[in-house]
Amino acid sequence: MKDELNIFYRIFTTTKDAIEKFMNMLDPVIQNAKDEHERLYYHHIYEEEEQRLSRLVELIPLISKFEKENDEKIFSPANNEFNRLLQELNLEKFGLHNFVEHLDLALFTFTDEERSTLLNQLRDVSYQDYLQVKEMLNKINERFDHDYVDPHAHHDKHYDHLARLGSSPIIKQPNKKKGFTVGSLK
Amino acid sequence: MKDELNIFYRIFTTTKDAIEKFMNMLDPVIQNAKDEHERLYYHHIYEEEEQRLSRLVELIPLISKFEKENDEKIFSPANNEFNRLLQELNLEKFGLHNFVEHLDLALFTFTDEERSTLLNQLRDVSYQDYLQVKEMLNKINERFDHDYVDPHAHHDKHYDHLARLGSSPIIKQPNKKKGFTVGSLK
Repeated sequence: MKDELNIFYRIFTTTKDAIEKFMNMLDPVIQNAKDEHERLYYHHIYEEEEQRLSRLVELIPLISKFEKENDEKIFSPANNEFNRLLQELNLEKFGLHNFVEHLDLALFTFTDEERSTLLNQLRDVSYQDYLQVKEMLNKINERFDHDYVDPHAHHDKHYDHLARLGSSPIIKQPNKKKGFTVGSLK
Repeated sequence: MKDELNIFYRIFTTTKDAIEKFMNMLDPVIQNAKDEHERLYYHHIYEEEEQRLSRLVELIPLISKFEKENDEKIFSPANNEFNRLLQELNLEKFGLHNFVEHLDLALFTFTDEERSTLLNQLRDVSYQDYLQVKEMLNKINERFDHDYVDPHAHHDKHYDHLARLGSSPIIKQPNKKKGFTVGSLK
């Protein structure tokens, strides 16, 4: 568990830094938006990343705290704080996923070399980190065999569309069902 | 606390229903998107709402469970499950906020009468519910005076821009600082 906590720590401090870079890129775009629709659009993405940043400010010290634990018993579903850690990590797996999509959307409009170079760098790192978080959480959930059920597990089968060839922001059409039923979530 | 749990239950079952209506509206738009950018844009919003729906499928029974409790001692920060409930409710306050913005963004492009009428209905209910959730959570947090710190509290001062006059989707420019520093989060 300690090795995984090390990696989680690296990934979430990296993405915290990436959020700040992205928000700094969005800020002048919001200030200079040509109309209300454009302004709301970028401001909305800015706020979602700001919310994620606020959660990471809480999560990163929690990861640190568990990293320092020497008693393996602490890493147990009987420990409420450990369960909370797993829940938060699961939520931030989706936070990373959504961040990759925010970057992909930005790549459609920020096509100048400076911004697209930075966006592509952030995108590639974030996508690899998302895959690694997803894989580690799958293994951890199997290993502990606890009663925590990932409420988003059904999503993962859709999320392969994030993969792309080269650096083109083109995303494959996922094989989505027509029409949505809540039953599909169960 | 029981009265508040009743209201939370009503609000989150209502918004669960609203998500489904909105997803059903987005589905054909995604299927018939004119290009990859448009498809990714709506698919991204669809997925964020799908993630929220998955969390609500877990949260609503948790609210129900607490609604049935007769021992007031259960509503205490010493109870880990109650703390978890408060954390989830706080997260869904932001889920509701983001939903209002998803609806506002949709109102810019889905201008036909059928869709804009439904979007405006969902928008008005969701915005009122967001305000009520925010107010109730503020009171609950004060009342319990526990050590739970809302990691998003700093956002709220920005969030008044969701208010609007009449049914126009025009949103006021928030008085945002230029430039972003992490220090501003602390």
